[in-house]
Amino acid sequence: MKQCDLIISDGDIVSMDSSFRILESHDLAISGGKIIDIYPTGSKKYRAKEDWDASGCFVTPGMINAHSHLPMTYLRGVADDMPLYKWLSEYIWSLEAKLLAPDFVYDASLHGAAEMLLNGITLTNDMYFHIDKIADACTEAGMRVIVSEAIIEAQLKDGLGHFIKRQEAIAERYKAEELVDIALAPHAIYTCSRDLLKECAAITAKKGWMIHTHLSETRQEVENCLKEHGKTPYQYLHELGFGELHCLFAHGVHLSESELELMASTRSAVAICTDSNLKLASGFAPLKALRQHGILSPLGTDGVSSNNDLDLLAELSTTAKLHKAINEDPEFLSAQEAFALVTIDAARALGKGDTLGSLEIGKAADLLLIDPYELNSQPLYNIYSHLVYAMNSRQIRDVFVAGKAVVQDKSLVNIYDDELMKKAFHYEGMVERFL
Amino acid sequence: MKQCDLIISDGDIVSMDSSFRILESHDLAISGGKIIDIYPTGSKKYRAKEDWDASGCFVTPGMINAHSHLPMTYLRGVADDMPLYKWLSEYIWSLEAKLLAPDFVYDASLHGAAEMLLNGITLTNDMYFHIDKIADACTEAGMRVIVSEAIIEAQLKDGLGHFIKRQEAIAERYKAEELVDIALAPHAIYTCSRDLLKECAAITAKKGWMIHTHLSETRQEVENCLKEHGKTPYQYLHELGFGELHCLFAHGVHLSESELELMASTRSAVAICTDSNLKLASGFAPLKALRQHGILSPLGTDGVSSNNDLDLLAELSTTAKLHKAINEDPEFLSAQEAFALVTIDAARALGKGDTLGSLEIGKAADLLLIDPYELNSQPLYNIYSHLVYAMNSRQIRDVFVAGKAVVQDKSLVNIYDDELMKKAFHYEGMVERFL
Repeated sequence: MKQCDLIISDGDIVSMDSSFRILESHDLAISGGKIIDIYPTGSKKYRAKEDWDASGCFVTPGMINAHSHLPMTYLRGVADDMPLYKWLSEYIWSLEAKLLAPDFVYDASLHGAAEMLLNGITLTNDMYFHIDKIADACTEAGMRVIVSEAIIEAQLKDGLGHFIKRQEAIAERYKAEELVDIALAPHAIYTCSRDLLKECAAITAKKGWMIHTHLSETRQEVENCLKEHGKTPYQYLHELGFGELHCLFAHGVHLSESELELMASTRSAVAICTDSNLKLASGFAPLKALRQHGILSPLGTDGVSSNNDLDLLAELSTTAKLHKAINEDPEFLSAQEAFALVTIDAARALGKGDTLGSLEIGKAADLLLIDPYELNSQPLYNIYSHLVYAMNSRQIRDVFVAGKAVVQDKSLVNIYDDELMKKAFHYEGMVERFL
Repeated sequence: MKQCDLIISDGDIVSMDSSFRILESHDLAISGGKIIDIYPTGSKKYRAKEDWDASGCFVTPGMINAHSHLPMTYLRGVADDMPLYKWLSEYIWSLEAKLLAPDFVYDASLHGAAEMLLNGITLTNDMYFHIDKIADACTEAGMRVIVSEAIIEAQLKDGLGHFIKRQEAIAERYKAEELVDIALAPHAIYTCSRDLLKECAAITAKKGWMIHTHLSETRQEVENCLKEHGKTPYQYLHELGFGELHCLFAHGVHLSESELELMASTRSAVAICTDSNLKLASGFAPLKALRQHGILSPLGTDGVSSNNDLDLLAELSTTAKLHKAINEDPEFLSAQEAFALVTIDAARALGKGDTLGSLEIGKAADLLLIDPYELNSQPLYNIYSHLVYAMNSRQIRDVFVAGKAVVQDKSLVNIYDDELMKKAFHYEGMVERFL
């Protein structure tokens, strides 16, 4: 018998490999944070330091959140039922101006990361400020994160050069930390000038970073861009050099057919933020057209304050059904294709398709044990149907990141809930004084 | 001190009264299944046989599901990702033809009722076959139900007269059972002839029953109706006498402005089935226009096989956000107006506004204790915002119907989960043999 660190035994493995195989009653052998073997339960190929019983459970890849703002978690529900610009300018930005200390960012991010892990999210692609604090919070929780400091020209006091130096120092600091990666985040075309965007593109081309930016979230943004630049937002960015880069565009609600044609030949992807776009009445992203152009379209929760939860499985369920109705095509997007949006498609969209997003030998052991033994998921005729249409995040029993349990029996392993709650009450009082 | 049966103490009472009052730290005194008093905690007005601690919880009215098919619970996920007619004709109807024994209906309904109660639904307006079995299952679970036997002309072997006699016998049998009410359910305009519909209207006018029927679910239904009758579906029914009756129309996706004008002067309401309509790509019901015409528009889960869960709070969250986007109006439907859709508006739509739907003195003690002490609902700035946008059904801790606990600490009081599961496995095997 061979040795390994951990065996997760007797689960029904929803591999999300290229043929969507489900391997009933299989074991996963894990060593060094990676899956080293997958084989039928009972064949006793490995001896492990630790055995983990997954019998009766679905074992799926960890879910990947393609667009978030972790530190906004403390702004959950401070302002609802209003348009994006009013919401940003009258509430969010003025609150942020008062609250944005490193401690606030760390504490709110830890709360958000804890919530994400409980919801089965094992990697989030985040954009905000004080990203070292976000990285610290995520590593504390045991969650993977791609951090990127939002570049807003009005706040860029000492120029992009200094900004990049700071970002490089942060990248250097987390170089050895497997859970943390870094991207460059010009915030949006309406908060960065043409020159700054061009500079960002040039620097990113050299550094090999991914670009993470907001794009075409509202009709207003498109209209303003047409007025100012005579081009649609993606066209504008494409011509500034973004077409050559690996970009993750968040939202993409109002992308036109010709923009999709342009984007199709690039390495870029669009993170669809269904709940946020619905709640702020921004609209519906063109998921079907994106797929027809072969553009990866993972899902993002966006920040809590425009969502108002971090429940990616619920977001998936809504997205999958919504786009059938929008396209008047109930056959559009099978349940298994839908589940790929939060797993393998998301991994590929973030440039991590080789290591994350499916349960295959050699990939990281980021995975979920989901318990279907509840009334809402019986009878059970089709696992994918249940995952997307019937089950909920509270059925996620255990969560592993890089082979380590970070949620066990629906409880956080590395963080005390009660301390998070105490902090949340503290900041609630602080925010309320500013409202 | 006065006597009462039960005091639910120290909750934050989301009354859903006409001014949406929230009464922080209040007690509810309950006797004979009704709320007899509401007063600030600590005033010690009552002595009760039983005290129930609601401290830290929201206390809300029980949620009301305006359209369901309980016995379809066992068909969860048998067929997805296809259009309504194909789904009905190739899967659902042929399965039903083989499965529809009274035992199947009872067992599936008990499963569905248990699931609904755990999700905080205290009354459902159901339509199916073998409705005595549905009534028995719901009373066993402790949930209110309005049952109605679907009238499908092709299956009406011995005429409407005999059908009505059977229905009257059932109504008589459950006369003393507070939890059960009865309605008349011509299934739809495409399964009942003009004469039969007219007869249904005439009989209902005499009996004082509510009519429960499907209406304008698909574009095809509207087109066929125009072709066959030269009228839109509601116009057609209105002229057959339905305009004089109290009707609950399920779906109403393709209702036109002129139909809404016609309906506005009646006692009828439209049950919006968001998830079902999205999943089957039927479209989006005109919620904003319905409200502008003063037509009550509660929510319905529809049957599990087109949903695929019975999670009304999730349905509410999706509906509230979706209709902001559809109307390009983020201010449309505040969170408190949204929460009314599943409480007081639903009660009024079903003709039960005097006894259900809000927590007020004299009304039935149908209520939920919802626990916000979880990461996904902290910080907490606005209770309505959290109920609609952030929380989930798994935070519903206790459920009361008519003053009796039917869910306690997230577990069913009157039913054993394990027996439901055993039955579900049994029927799963049976259904699979027919697939």
